[in-house]
Amino acid sequence: MTIEDMTSSTWAPLADEEFNRTILERGVDLKDLACLPISLGWYGEKEENRRLIKVQCYSMKDTANFYMRPIEGLTILLDMDTKEVLEITDKGKNIPIPKAVNTDYRYSAQGLHQRMKLINPISLEQPEGPSFVIEDEHLVKWANWEFHLKPDPRAGAIVSQARVRDPDSGEIRNVMYKGFTSELFVPYMDPTDAWYFKTYMDAGEYGFGLQAMPLDPLNDCPRNAHYMDGVFPAADGTPYVRSNMICIFESYAGDIGWRHAESPITGMGIKEVRPKVTLVVRMAASVANYDYIVDWEFQTDGLIRIKVGLSGILMVKGTAYENMNQISNQAENLFGTLLSENVIGVIHDHFITFYLDMDIDGSDNSFVKVNIKRQETSPGESPRRSYLKADRNVAKTEKDAQIKLKLYDPAEFHVINPTKKTRVGNPVGYKVVPGGTAASLLDREDPPQKRGAFTNNQIWVTPYNESEQWAGGLFVYQSKGEDTLAVWSDRDRSIENKDIVLWYTLGFHHIPCQEDFPIMPTVSSSFDLKPVNFFESNPILRIPPNVEKDLPVCKAAASA
Amino acid sequence: MTIEDMTSSTWAPLADEEFNRTILERGVDLKDLACLPISLGWYGEKEENRRLIKVQCYSMKDTANFYMRPIEGLTILLDMDTKEVLEITDKGKNIPIPKAVNTDYRYSAQGLHQRMKLINPISLEQPEGPSFVIEDEHLVKWANWEFHLKPDPRAGAIVSQARVRDPDSGEIRNVMYKGFTSELFVPYMDPTDAWYFKTYMDAGEYGFGLQAMPLDPLNDCPRNAHYMDGVFPAADGTPYVRSNMICIFESYAGDIGWRHAESPITGMGIKEVRPKVTLVVRMAASVANYDYIVDWEFQTDGLIRIKVGLSGILMVKGTAYENMNQISNQAENLFGTLLSENVIGVIHDHFITFYLDMDIDGSDNSFVKVNIKRQETSPGESPRRSYLKADRNVAKTEKDAQIKLKLYDPAEFHVINPTKKTRVGNPVGYKVVPGGTAASLLDREDPPQKRGAFTNNQIWVTPYNESEQWAGGLFVYQSKGEDTLAVWSDRDRSIENKDIVLWYTLGFHHIPCQEDFPIMPTVSSSFDLKPVNFFESNPILRIPPNVEKDLPVCKAAASA
Repeated sequence: MTIEDMTSSTWAPLADEEFNRTILERGVDLKDLACLPISLGWYGEKEENRRLIKVQCYSMKDTANFYMRPIEGLTILLDMDTKEVLEITDKGKNIPIPKAVNTDYRYSAQGLHQRMKLINPISLEQPEGPSFVIEDEHLVKWANWEFHLKPDPRAGAIVSQARVRDPDSGEIRNVMYKGFTSELFVPYMDPTDAWYFKTYMDAGEYGFGLQAMPLDPLNDCPRNAHYMDGVFPAADGTPYVRSNMICIFESYAGDIGWRHAESPITGMGIKEVRPKVTLVVRMAASVANYDYIVDWEFQTDGLIRIKVGLSGILMVKGTAYENMNQISNQAENLFGTLLSENVIGVIHDHFITFYLDMDIDGSDNSFVKVNIKRQETSPGESPRRSYLKADRNVAKTEKDAQIKLKLYDPAEFHVINPTKKTRVGNPVGYKVVPGGTAASLLDREDPPQKRGAFTNNQIWVTPYNESEQWAGGLFVYQSKGEDTLAVWSDRDRSIENKDIVLWYTLGFHHIPCQEDFPIMPTVSSSFDLKPVNFFESNPILRIPPNVEKDLPVCKAAASA
Repeated sequence: MTIEDMTSSTWAPLADEEFNRTILERGVDLKDLACLPISLGWYGEKEENRRLIKVQCYSMKDTANFYMRPIEGLTILLDMDTKEVLEITDKGKNIPIPKAVNTDYRYSAQGLHQRMKLINPISLEQPEGPSFVIEDEHLVKWANWEFHLKPDPRAGAIVSQARVRDPDSGEIRNVMYKGFTSELFVPYMDPTDAWYFKTYMDAGEYGFGLQAMPLDPLNDCPRNAHYMDGVFPAADGTPYVRSNMICIFESYAGDIGWRHAESPITGMGIKEVRPKVTLVVRMAASVANYDYIVDWEFQTDGLIRIKVGLSGILMVKGTAYENMNQISNQAENLFGTLLSENVIGVIHDHFITFYLDMDIDGSDNSFVKVNIKRQETSPGESPRRSYLKADRNVAKTEKDAQIKLKLYDPAEFHVINPTKKTRVGNPVGYKVVPGGTAASLLDREDPPQKRGAFTNNQIWVTPYNESEQWAGGLFVYQSKGEDTLAVWSDRDRSIENKDIVLWYTLGFHHIPCQEDFPIMPTVSSSFDLKPVNFFESNPILRIPPNVEKDLPVCKAAASA
């Protein structure tokens, strides 16, 4: 969809008299109406050659947070091109629209006596300026890293040609050719009429980059941040600028890069500690109600952390219930949590799938599963009965690299360059360190899971193929799941010592709770790309500690 | 063991002529000798009524990092009280002592031309001062939190009476009565003679607090930190002060507390973002080679994050190999990774078990498993075949709450107050959000796993019992596993609506890599205690955004 498709669809139902009558019957003034364009997935409908969309509406009377005031059960099916109303389903006339009270999240809407100042000002300061430079508007050079950074209408931020300097040789070495958010899959867990189709694929359907709004310069990123604009085409091809779409900043949370203090046992009196400073690249996409914060964090020790934060507003369902004590039948399924009077936060999952074309010291790499297994000792071999052993297994073909993570069958997952070894003979590599490991539990034959089949595994490895970059397929809107990562991977091509692409899916199960109302505190998960025998030794052994004379002198703004 | 036990044991072997001869035969000058006291676990030895200890030694010639120069295969068994040498085992005479080159990690030992200044100074600044106060030396009050903080020789830091202010009622509400690091279990994965017994329980054997050295004021914690001293008894009862053992500071990494920007679809032009500032309580314990950094991080949204960082120095094994190409037999087991010439980093696990006496709005609480399960739809019910459903199951007895985490059988784990409900009728609670989920894979009947049986599950819940605070038992040294959390829990006592204690184990599998040589970049994992229907709504809805006029004015120290 283009942004124009989305916005024009939200207004199209107003051309329909039956729609307007329904709205008025609910007591909503047409001027208070806010409607959303909802991708409808694919469930075997007959209108296969039409671009369809569903629209659902809210009352924005007395609140900026119309998402908390659903006109429940009302769904309009539209032809996205002709804007023809094909069907109106209205099954929620007995469900009240939840009240506006306590829903507005804007600071300006809070009563003066309700505002809470909890802390004194705190800030990240670099009086000598940032340690990075950006050349040619896109090439970021910081500490021992350099990489190219590009805003993209579909993926959001694209990091490419990420390279890190080897402290021994002084050489700058390839780590990743290209990495980006390839697709999202957000199935809601309510099979009823007005909800079953809510199984979003935000990158391919809505444009993860298109939905990234300008960042707030003192709150989305710290004051020391630099910003990068995006330039995107409108539906008619006219370019427009999305200003401040990505920020880049150095972060220091008070954490420790490495340390050792000699203990009282040896009494050697040594204490060596290094602070941990990182470089963060951030984008925040607002896909209607939800806000996704995507961070690429570069560490001087060679680690790249990819973190997704979820904030924004829940997609909620209207209900006649005002209190759980009205539910006499304990087995009754609300499909979520009663968050406030007449408001249910519906259970859902979030899966964010990353494309990671690793190039460890060159394009031809292999994928190695280092399986961690219990080994029993032989009788008399040892007072121990068991220990853990690491077995290295090189994946020959794609099916060897379809990985469902298991806590009781753990492994490390290395991308190595089989032709390059360290001084003592280990292959150089990076490992993907899983996090956010929630897996999709939907039936594999469920239509949304077929379209979102790239979430059937957390890790996949494919040989590089120019046409295989979008995990849900190049054309996702109303797709049938015929062109997903799962389909490509099942070809079972050779991936040993090839230009390979690693795919990782961050997953979240979200059972809403009252704290998520009316706007959610950020929840984050991350995974890491971490050097494993890539360097000969700790690459930040020789960085200095902080000393007082280098740190800034600051005073309160009021006294300045 | 007391510190005096440990230090005196390290020197005791020098009284033995055979020991001295062996050292000299290896070419090590006695003045270069560094020895470590190693707890030996319990393997059914006969000397049950003696306090025993093993000692192994290193050469500290030409490096402060003697840990990288093991005198491999030499183990001395001592009587800890009489200091009598009971046995010397020497099976490593053909294994060279690894060289000192590239092992020293001190900044002063780095060549001037090798030092790497990667970044400009960066600092966390609060010109109006910190937002917390510490009353009576131990009661910390910050933002909406207050809690008592106490250094402890065994546990390290103890957080107690943690309470958070409710923004609606203004009332301060109980969350946790007491929380601390109850025990660690660190089994090494080498069953051979000089290694099989290395299965440390650092809190009960060495004293996690006793090993916490004074923190480095600009590097272990940021400049804005406050410090707290510990006061501990020496072996003869004399009190001594461990200065700067714990630090407390506010942290801001540039992260986002909550946000929402209206997307281009609605065009409402709203953008509301709040920065995320937290309070960190930190301790770092140096249990000989390893450094554990334990953080208790309090968030204004009510979340408590408990994070453990691993840094310091690996326990390594000497080997005759200098390069992997010398190993012709692929099946040969090194029990780890060749990190440098003659140095193997041995595979090991770290388990850190926390005692968490939750008191959600009072002492009597229940533990609820919220199981997330696939529900298939009936034919014709929906175009969807499946969705996820959350089933609440209250644990009646301890065995209901012995939890092995499983990715394909996910759940949330709530501690609720069954007698207190929110306005809309949900029980108030906190959930434990797992992280660092590596599980022990050792044979349950293996002697070290019997002693470390508190790691058989990641989560346990017990009824409060004054004598059940140390997961490995009150007396851990040479224990047989007869007094562990696993034994207590198997009594299967009632835990519903009782004063209950939640136990959580953070786990790490560590396959060393060359980047860990000669000192390890910090690796962290954490788990969260997170409000779940504890508050009526987002408790930080009404905090202000950052505005420029409140932020400090800073200049470079050099220009001051």
